[in-house]
Amino acid sequence: MRVRGVLERTIRPTPDGRAVEVIDQTRLPEAFEFVRLENLPEAAAAIRSMIVRGAPLIGVTAAYGVWLGLIRDPSDAGLARAGATLVATRPTAVNLAWAVERVRAAVAGLPPERRAAAARATADAMAEEDVETNRAIGIHGAAWILGRRPGPFTAARPLAILTHCNAGWLATVDGGTALAPVYRLHDEGVPVHVWVDETRPRNQGARLTAWELSEHGVPCTLVADNAGGHLCQRGLVDLCIVGADRVTSTGDVANKIGTYLKALAAAAHDVPFLVAVPSSTIDPELLDGVASIPIERRSPREVTHVEGALEDGGQATVRISPAGVPAENPAFDVTPARLVGGLVTERGVVAATGEAIRAAFPERFGVDVGDARP
Amino acid sequence: MRVRGVLERTIRPTPDGRAVEVIDQTRLPEAFEFVRLENLPEAAAAIRSMIVRGAPLIGVTAAYGVWLGLIRDPSDAGLARAGATLVATRPTAVNLAWAVERVRAAVAGLPPERRAAAARATADAMAEEDVETNRAIGIHGAAWILGRRPGPFTAARPLAILTHCNAGWLATVDGGTALAPVYRLHDEGVPVHVWVDETRPRNQGARLTAWELSEHGVPCTLVADNAGGHLCQRGLVDLCIVGADRVTSTGDVANKIGTYLKALAAAAHDVPFLVAVPSSTIDPELLDGVASIPIERRSPREVTHVEGALEDGGQATVRISPAGVPAENPAFDVTPARLVGGLVTERGVVAATGEAIRAAFPERFGVDVGDARP
Repeated sequence: MRVRGVLERTIRPTPDGRAVEVIDQTRLPEAFEFVRLENLPEAAAAIRSMIVRGAPLIGVTAAYGVWLGLIRDPSDAGLARAGATLVATRPTAVNLAWAVERVRAAVAGLPPERRAAAARATADAMAEEDVETNRAIGIHGAAWILGRRPGPFTAARPLAILTHCNAGWLATVDGGTALAPVYRLHDEGVPVHVWVDETRPRNQGARLTAWELSEHGVPCTLVADNAGGHLCQRGLVDLCIVGADRVTSTGDVANKIGTYLKALAAAAHDVPFLVAVPSSTIDPELLDGVASIPIERRSPREVTHVEGALEDGGQATVRISPAGVPAENPAFDVTPARLVGGLVTERGVVAATGEAIRAAFPERFGVDVGDARP
Repeated sequence: MRVRGVLERTIRPTPDGRAVEVIDQTRLPEAFEFVRLENLPEAAAAIRSMIVRGAPLIGVTAAYGVWLGLIRDPSDAGLARAGATLVATRPTAVNLAWAVERVRAAVAGLPPERRAAAARATADAMAEEDVETNRAIGIHGAAWILGRRPGPFTAARPLAILTHCNAGWLATVDGGTALAPVYRLHDEGVPVHVWVDETRPRNQGARLTAWELSEHGVPCTLVADNAGGHLCQRGLVDLCIVGADRVTSTGDVANKIGTYLKALAAAAHDVPFLVAVPSSTIDPELLDGVASIPIERRSPREVTHVEGALEDGGQATVRISPAGVPAENPAFDVTPARLVGGLVTERGVVAATGEAIRAAFPERFGVDVGDARP
């Protein structure tokens, strides 16, 4: 996507062939900077500290992370250590384990001296696939939305979309998941307006979604996370769309904490609630999201302290609660499948049911589909 | 309530008889300071800028504000101007109009030279009544809660209460509304634990509720507003209790933005959702909260900027979103009566239905009850 008019991706191998560069998302929106990841510990730290975040981007970064690990240690032990190190960084996003396993499977049968190059080729392919996947999500999502919400829309009465957290191009290699249909509709000339949840405690909506939508010229308005029920109740939301970190085989959705509240509000007011995901986000092994998906608990400091820009252009961190008051920080919640109006995937909009998910992605469930599917 | 061991109220006439002092709630939790209000403009500004906030305290401050206005201008015009100035400060809390009207009715028939003293006496009485009302809310609420959630509770498995915004003693003259039953249960030795919503955008939960609960020794944990659905889903909430700025005659509840989302989450998991209010918060003229209650829109800056404490003890305001991105800031939302498990009032826990509210408070509906009610 464009940043100040220049096409950018969130992650790119360096020309010297020895590292990857990623946008440092902890510095947005105040600074747009790439940081260089040269080895396995740096890749793992970038995921853990949320320099990169977003399930699809975490997956691709992990794939490159295996490559970086294999450059130094291509042995079986090195391969195992790279995978274990990366998978341990974030527990909720299933794309991480999926990506690591894919690279491992691609290189494990090779002699050690050929593994790094093969891992790099696999990671490159996954990055390209992510872009293609998101393009397809954009096409399918936009068509579904216009089918359900045909308009007409005008600048004064645009298609009003509520999103939570950041599932834009910053959460992927490029194109975004939840925002892919939004960008597509906007680029096709449909007047859209996005309500951006600030997404406490880390403010990914305020910092990242508001930034990338604005850079692309999509009209958007920031709101407190608390406002979504009111907006749905007043008829100010035509559609909710979010990404996900993991979707069970039965359609339960783990996504950023607070997603569930928006799904409840959407359901209460018959607002379609879409979850846009590449199929790599589907966990074929889980049946019950509430019972089975591990919910990451992050530092209480993310709740008690807020970072932002000072008037003078500097950065500062302020404490918003009394010193010593404890905080709890579950980073994700689970939205049950019954509240999900559809999963926008690279193969179309799929109902959030076990049957529909299995029918759309049989190969994820160990079914040999031969040449029947692309 | 106690602050560093000393009993305090949020508002008190000064010994010189010419002003009131109020806790500056914009400075909490970093500083506990009283500011002096000497005249009508200062009283109105204190309400508008949220130096005082909370429906009951706004009402009592407005009553003293009329008094301060009448000291300088006790004419009919002065009385009318005082009322109009104060009522215009905040549109959603009905206690404001109720309090102003009560003082006006008490003094309008008097000769101008006697009006100020009568207004002061009325305001003093209203302050005392507020304390008594909240004591009764605490008694009725605690009994209802133990009836519905009998426990046993232990330090390891306390009664878990979720609250939103601040409806503690800081929102009243003393005692609190939503927190009155919590303090009562705690003081009676029932192990309680409060999940405190931070309550974006102004963080009244993080700044005020966490502070006053901690000062009183009630165990509490701060959470992002986004966490409530997850907490209810995981069985970590026994009860939600909030205050209100206005309750319609049919039981719809206007309260801080985000309340509605918590009511939806509570309903989804059979968690009782209580609203604690003095009867002055009931607006007998409104039938439909969503259609009729005016929702205050506050400055976008409250969403885009966050104030807090720096490590060095200073205060700073940081911008959390990209410069130039617009924000919308509805300050309240409306929770429909069907989601309200009960209204905890000074006369007991009343069902959130027109019939029950009318039966409990007939005098608010123009019914002459003679000596039948206290």
